[in-house]
Amino acid sequence: MADPRFYHNSGPFTLGELAKICQGIITNEHDCDKVIHDVAALSVATSDQISFLNNIRYLQSFSESQAGACVVHPEQAPSAPPTMALILTPTPYRAYGLIAAAFYPETILTPSIHPSAIISSSATIGEHCFIGPGCVIEEHVKIGMHSSIAAGTIIKTAVEIGEHCHIKENCVISHSIIGNNVTILPGAKIGQAGFGFFMDNQGYVNIPQLGRVIINDNVEIGSNTTIDRGAAGDTIIGKGTQIDNLVQIAHNVHIGKGCIIVAQVGIAGSTKIGDHTILAGQVGIAGHLSIGNNVKIAAQSGVMRNVEDNETVSGSPAVPSGQWHRQNIILKKLVTKNKE
Amino acid sequence: MADPRFYHNSGPFTLGELAKICQGIITNEHDCDKVIHDVAALSVATSDQISFLNNIRYLQSFSESQAGACVVHPEQAPSAPPTMALILTPTPYRAYGLIAAAFYPETILTPSIHPSAIISSSATIGEHCFIGPGCVIEEHVKIGMHSSIAAGTIIKTAVEIGEHCHIKENCVISHSIIGNNVTILPGAKIGQAGFGFFMDNQGYVNIPQLGRVIINDNVEIGSNTTIDRGAAGDTIIGKGTQIDNLVQIAHNVHIGKGCIIVAQVGIAGSTKIGDHTILAGQVGIAGHLSIGNNVKIAAQSGVMRNVEDNETVSGSPAVPSGQWHRQNIILKKLVTKNKE
Amino acid sequence: MADPRFYHNSGPFTLGELAKICQGIITNEHDCDKVIHDVAALSVATSDQISFLNNIRYLQSFSESQAGACVVHPEQAPSAPPTMALILTPTPYRAYGLIAAAFYPETILTPSIHPSAIISSSATIGEHCFIGPGCVIEEHVKIGMHSSIAAGTIIKTAVEIGEHCHIKENCVISHSIIGNNVTILPGAKIGQAGFGFFMDNQGYVNIPQLGRVIINDNVEIGSNTTIDRGAAGDTIIGKGTQIDNLVQIAHNVHIGKGCIIVAQVGIAGSTKIGDHTILAGQVGIAGHLSIGNNVKIAAQSGVMRNVEDNETVSGSPAVPSGQWHRQNIILKKLVTKNKE
Repeated sequence: MADPRFYHNSGPFTLGELAKICQGIITNEHDCDKVIHDVAALSVATSDQISFLNNIRYLQSFSESQAGACVVHPEQAPSAPPTMALILTPTPYRAYGLIAAAFYPETILTPSIHPSAIISSSATIGEHCFIGPGCVIEEHVKIGMHSSIAAGTIIKTAVEIGEHCHIKENCVISHSIIGNNVTILPGAKIGQAGFGFFMDNQGYVNIPQLGRVIINDNVEIGSNTTIDRGAAGDTIIGKGTQIDNLVQIAHNVHIGKGCIIVAQVGIAGSTKIGDHTILAGQVGIAGHLSIGNNVKIAAQSGVMRNVEDNETVSGSPAVPSGQWHRQNIILKKLVTKNKE
Repeated sequence: MADPRFYHNSGPFTLGELAKICQGIITNEHDCDKVIHDVAALSVATSDQISFLNNIRYLQSFSESQAGACVVHPEQAPSAPPTMALILTPTPYRAYGLIAAAFYPETILTPSIHPSAIISSSATIGEHCFIGPGCVIEEHVKIGMHSSIAAGTIIKTAVEIGEHCHIKENCVISHSIIGNNVTILPGAKIGQAGFGFFMDNQGYVNIPQLGRVIINDNVEIGSNTTIDRGAAGDTIIGKGTQIDNLVQIAHNVHIGKGCIIVAQVGIAGSTKIGDHTILAGQVGIAGHLSIGNNVKIAAQSGVMRNVEDNETVSGSPAVPSGQWHRQNIILKKLVTKNKE
Repeated sequence: MADPRFYHNSGPFTLGELAKICQGIITNEHDCDKVIHDVAALSVATSDQISFLNNIRYLQSFSESQAGACVVHPEQAPSAPPTMALILTPTPYRAYGLIAAAFYPETILTPSIHPSAIISSSATIGEHCFIGPGCVIEEHVKIGMHSSIAAGTIIKTAVEIGEHCHIKENCVISHSIIGNNVTILPGAKIGQAGFGFFMDNQGYVNIPQLGRVIINDNVEIGSNTTIDRGAAGDTIIGKGTQIDNLVQIAHNVHIGKGCIIVAQVGIAGSTKIGDHTILAGQVGIAGHLSIGNNVKIAAQSGVMRNVEDNETVSGSPAVPSGQWHRQNIILKKLVTKNKE
């Protein structure tokens, strides 16, 4: 399935090997030796490929699929076509991810420093690093082992980057301390001065931005996302948090562990967000708020008050999601009634 | 009008020549030989310049304009000042575009490859191409004739770009197949890995992103826009679709032909959009939806359900625009009533 | 407080010196000779540091702070801990900004032109400028004294930049005239062609974008923000206006003096905005509108009509903020009533 110009397939694997990789259970032990050559989507998979069913929307696609094998939740297994081999798992998307990573392991860049890169003599670059064309690595920067800095990226004075980090092309990073296994996609800008000034009729006074950005291990940051450094104190991104493209994170924001921040979210200054909280696309959160753990905020919501642990909110202004749904139903009824 | 430091004027033209260029009709044949030296906005145009009236908001500006000539819809012609020469056309904005392009044709960059560009020996670059300073062109890239890659842009392994394409400064493009006559404005990031992971209490598993971005002919993509490659399958942008700045298009999104996607729109993963559909500014569309042909989605709408062909929707959650307007009227009435 | 790897502390200062710098009044003249070594947030400041109280939310933090000194509004002074020295001022945030700038003055880059920068022989670069690695400065560009162009930034043909400007990394600027003391943060794209085309069933015609971007003195523009040049006429940003990250400003927009445009705002083409107007985060403004002076537009509002001077509006569609709050209260009541 994957275009060989862009991806190298490390297969084939037997279904038994794949079941082991994804910790799933093969329903029919005769299928263990079946040879699988690739992963593919349900609608295009062929008899020597494996697919996955993760979303009930695609149940019909599953029933009609030509895939030779599929990872599936036990509850959906009865809908499988008769010839399809099955690997059962409570988490098919996770299983698919592990199988796909076996077929297409991440490319390891050959360690090298491109001659066009401009690297300060006071910078420390660990072993097995890749530094691409046109990169600029300024004074006292530290980069850990097995990390890569892709073409055109600029790492400013004294920034620290851990091991196994991948900073993609045309990023700019300043005033930041970055942990291990952090991936930053092309064009992200991290550590610039936040929006800090005092303004009145007499004009404005700039407020020096004197903090840092602290990015913990296993964080991923999307393309063209912007994260401002702290004003007084730090902007902090917790371990394992995943941030999508075009997100704005203002100065002094703290985000906890394992959060999911979808594209185009904006978080205003000094707001604190707990662990395992999900912000769907285009959410806006006002400044100086406290958002709890395991909170879910629906797409486009505008949050203007604190949110407690485990709450689910929607709308602008954001209210508990149940209330928001009832508001929408009532509005619809009022319109219908008015037309009569 | 146009500042000669930035733009070269190829005029003058006679009004007759301009009428031919824009396929319009001169109301008074004595005007055919009138010499026009430039285009200009209604409010600043002088007696040797041509302007246009496209939007009724500017009807008074039209009546008071000093412009020597104007392209205008026949219905508005009676409001013209007496000395103004007129070119009639049902589509004045189109006519103005053609006339302005005659005065100011696109600059053709002198074909050249800047010595600071880093180009893989396995890349194929067509004749008459321009490759700017600091560009990086990786292995097996193919670029068609008459295309330009501006300074600081990075084209990653095996990307294919057609003929007469213009990729502006500081873009990053990977995992993409791009047609002919495609323009990509500065800072766009195309082909990076989408937001793909499985997360639960035990942590997260990355889902390899194994697809591509397919961009068809005549597409334009705005500044700092991000388009993620497919996860399994491709992200597809249909022929002639125009995408504005700071738009986010997630993995596996399919956009049809001739669509208009205004600034800061976000489209979540796997959503399909038909042909000739318009998404106004800051619209958000949830994932896995199907949006039809000739749909109009008003600015800031949040679309959470499928939308049929020819529907017009507004609001968050998006509802038929008529219903949305009535909701707003009812809300206003309820407020007024409550105050009494 | 500030990490010495990133910031150089120019202190210490006596409290008397600091009071003079910020034009505040020391409540107890015995405190004048107290030596202050740093600025710090209320919650972490120690006995030789100065903090500030700007927001009533942090009043308890103020009462419990270990800070040796604090700038504070006279009304909050009675809540101070007994040992804390106080500088009174009606504008504590302004005072803090001036004090912090005394401790941490902006780093002056050593004037220099990096040998990897590619600079046209027809460009004019003033004295004491810094031009970073990999910059591209095209034909006829003019840059005033004491300005800096950071690594990877591209200044296109004939752009003019005034004195004491700081254009940060990986920006692209074309078709622009920029005043003095302007700061542009990493990744901003300014002067590219706006979203201009005519489209119908027969296809589309590009409308040449023939204007400029005019940026007046003392403007700051955020990271990854995009400002399109005028179509016919100019896009104009007034003196002292502050623009945050990921903002979209379309062609022909005019923004007045001293405005505040918060992150992710989008302003559609040809809209005019007065002086001292505030657009909070994620606001969208439709095209061809007129927004007055001293207007306040709440976060996420969608403005679809003209707004008069001094109005405060909220919601999408935006209505007077009082009406918007009442709408929300009524909706909540209707939900409660319906559940009974």
